[in-house]
Amino acid sequence: MRHSTTRRNVLRGSAATVALAATAATATEAHAVPRDGTGPNIGILLYDGYSLLDPTGPAEVLSRLPGATVTMIAAKRGAVRTDTGDVALVAEQSIDEVDRLDVLLVPGAGNRGTVAAMNDKTLLRWIRRIHRHSRWTTSVCTGSIVLAAAGLLDGRRATTYWASAEYLQSTFDVTYLPQRYVRSGKIITAAGVSAGVDMALHLASLLSDDDTAKAIQLAVEYDPQPPFDSGNAAQASPQLKERALRLLAASQV
Amino acid sequence: MRHSTTRRNVLRGSAATVALAATAATATEAHAVPRDGTGPNIGILLYDGYSLLDPTGPAEVLSRLPGATVTMIAAKRGAVRTDTGDVALVAEQSIDEVDRLDVLLVPGAGNRGTVAAMNDKTLLRWIRRIHRHSRWTTSVCTGSIVLAAAGLLDGRRATTYWASAEYLQSTFDVTYLPQRYVRSGKIITAAGVSAGVDMALHLASLLSDDDTAKAIQLAVEYDPQPPFDSGNAAQASPQLKERALRLLAASQV
Repeated sequence: MRHSTTRRNVLRGSAATVALAATAATATEAHAVPRDGTGPNIGILLYDGYSLLDPTGPAEVLSRLPGATVTMIAAKRGAVRTDTGDVALVAEQSIDEVDRLDVLLVPGAGNRGTVAAMNDKTLLRWIRRIHRHSRWTTSVCTGSIVLAAAGLLDGRRATTYWASAEYLQSTFDVTYLPQRYVRSGKIITAAGVSAGVDMALHLASLLSDDDTAKAIQLAVEYDPQPPFDSGNAAQASPQLKERALRLLAASQV
Repeated sequence: MRHSTTRRNVLRGSAATVALAATAATATEAHAVPRDGTGPNIGILLYDGYSLLDPTGPAEVLSRLPGATVTMIAAKRGAVRTDTGDVALVAEQSIDEVDRLDVLLVPGAGNRGTVAAMNDKTLLRWIRRIHRHSRWTTSVCTGSIVLAAAGLLDGRRATTYWASAEYLQSTFDVTYLPQRYVRSGKIITAAGVSAGVDMALHLASLLSDDDTAKAIQLAVEYDPQPPFDSGNAAQASPQLKERALRLLAASQV
């Protein structure tokens, strides 16, 4: 019974090849578009304890830019674990191998990962070196605190994770703005975690044009409809904020 | 100059430890909450050519559930590459090592990856085996086509990636609903890519309660504000749809 089910599906699967290909009728033409670095060279810095969606949301969006390359980068090549310790992305290159990027993105992390990155002289020095020649230097969540620790946000306006806003403003010469993303010169900071997707679409329009960015938004079917309306800290109760921070802390190693 | 800058930031970084910890005042108490599998055991199936945000958006959300474990699973342990070929997540376990999950999530992929998964008898057999005992069997994007190929959607209502809706409905005994996510019994299918985040918040409420899911939404600061309003295929022009599919195809290997 299971066998015949499998068999039937495999036959459908074979027939599917044509049908599915048809849904992307321009595939052939599109594949003619070379992925040869004619587009932006985008590097995302991974460090121990980052939050998974911070690098992956923007990577999903920015990887759809014509000719774009997205490279995960870390102190050393290999697996880099998230704040939960459950999941790892592969760093394809080490910071020693990268000295030029069109776009640098620094994700956020839990408390442990953020503080460690802020105190990593080698990482901060690399961030400053890449920033010197980047077209855009960007961050998601507490990644803006890492940029601030590198001295890149002095005298600037920026955003960060809602629970880190007071810390960012009181520790550095930064004016916090409670926005999804804030552009200051060639630096763009995004608010917490999911805000990286909104920032990446804005960045996509800056790297190409509005029509391309709109097509990317459709390509990732980004028509958000959260089942709740609880994602804005300015409207959240102290109880909900405490609960959110407790869940975060409990999920992190 | 750079040295003194670095020095100053490192000192601030040290002072930051306390300050940042204070932003998660309940951290100590929270860390007392064991991550010992008292929560749901969530498995995400990776296969060559998946779309990065499909597994990572839901993983970010679901990993915040109390006691939850999120495991990336594939045919074999090790790095599994996305549709662009640029990025890889690490599969921590092979399907041979996993015979029970509270939640199974099957992400979507590009045309190549989806068709390959539909034709992988071993993968489909494992999906059916896990589904038999799962609390929830879920998919994102064309992951619903893989569930359909496994025979799990016969006679059901489901959603999928907008460009694959016609294929899903014409190939399988499935009624397509143009919704962010569709629940049919213990199966929940999500629309394309970013819809996995909305589905995961709904699933989080089913696995815990609304207050916990709302706190998770705040924890990931999910207050979406896309710079454009182009993510809904039902409202998109044929030109925009063609452009989106061309960008997708061109970005995939």
